[in-house]
Amino acid sequence: MQKPRRPSWLPVVAAIIRKENKVLLGQRPPNKSLAGLWEFPGGKIELGESPEEALRRELEEELGIDADIGPLRVVTSHNYGDVGVLLVFFEVNFWKGEPKSIYHSQLKWGTVDELRQTELPEANRLILHKIIECMS
Amino acid sequence: MQKPRRPSWLPVVAAIIRKENKVLLGQRPPNKSLAGLWEFPGGKIELGESPEEALRRELEEELGIDADIGPLRVVTSHNYGDVGVLLVFFEVNFWKGEPKSIYHSQLKWGTVDELRQTELPEANRLILHKIIECMS
Repeated sequence: MQKPRRPSWLPVVAAIIRKENKVLLGQRPPNKSLAGLWEFPGGKIELGESPEEALRRELEEELGIDADIGPLRVVTSHNYGDVGVLLVFFEVNFWKGEPKSIYHSQLKWGTVDELRQTELPEANRLILHKIIECMS
Repeated sequence: MQKPRRPSWLPVVAAIIRKENKVLLGQRPPNKSLAGLWEFPGGKIELGESPEEALRRELEEELGIDADIGPLRVVTSHNYGDVGVLLVFFEVNFWKGEPKSIYHSQLKWGTVDELRQTELPEANRLILHKIIECMS
């Protein structure tokens, strides 16, 4: 009998970066999966990194900022086909540098109302209410 | 050239179950990895489960309790060889039933001082200070 394949998981960290009553979103580039959708900045945790280290690295690579990773806010899971994504959100309230779209097609600062009307990947959309709770 | 193997991750949920100033630990059974060490109850997230659903199921299977999963407290990563473990801790303050050692060799309720002197798996020990912070 074939041994069942161990399920495949990707742990992803993402940032809730706020300025006054707005939060930062990046539009996924055309050559990537989920192209054109808006997402919270972040990315995969590499083996050997803590979640905070991974997020700090991703924010430097994607936005060119030097971020202080703040409180843990939300953890959620989502399947894309047979791959599980475990998505871990931290608040980021302090950083050095001005966010630039190094990775994304463009960036925008959105209010809660704008966030609700923005096309997000499903894993983000499903927990939008939890993220909005953190912003109020 | 061989394609690099995608790193292997296991997402695990664990519970900080408190009664007055004590927290519940279970001793890992002799036939399992890390046998004899004491751990926070919990286990792997299955594909399709949310972290909270996974923890609720694990606490029912391991302890025979019907638990209300409380606030998210700590997320940490740790490597065992080339497998990354992403460990997600929730507080559990309300449950029905008396915890029984269905899975563990034995259970104990430990104070913070006892916790510091208990043999925990490395992934637990390294973040013990964060867990103790949640208890104070």
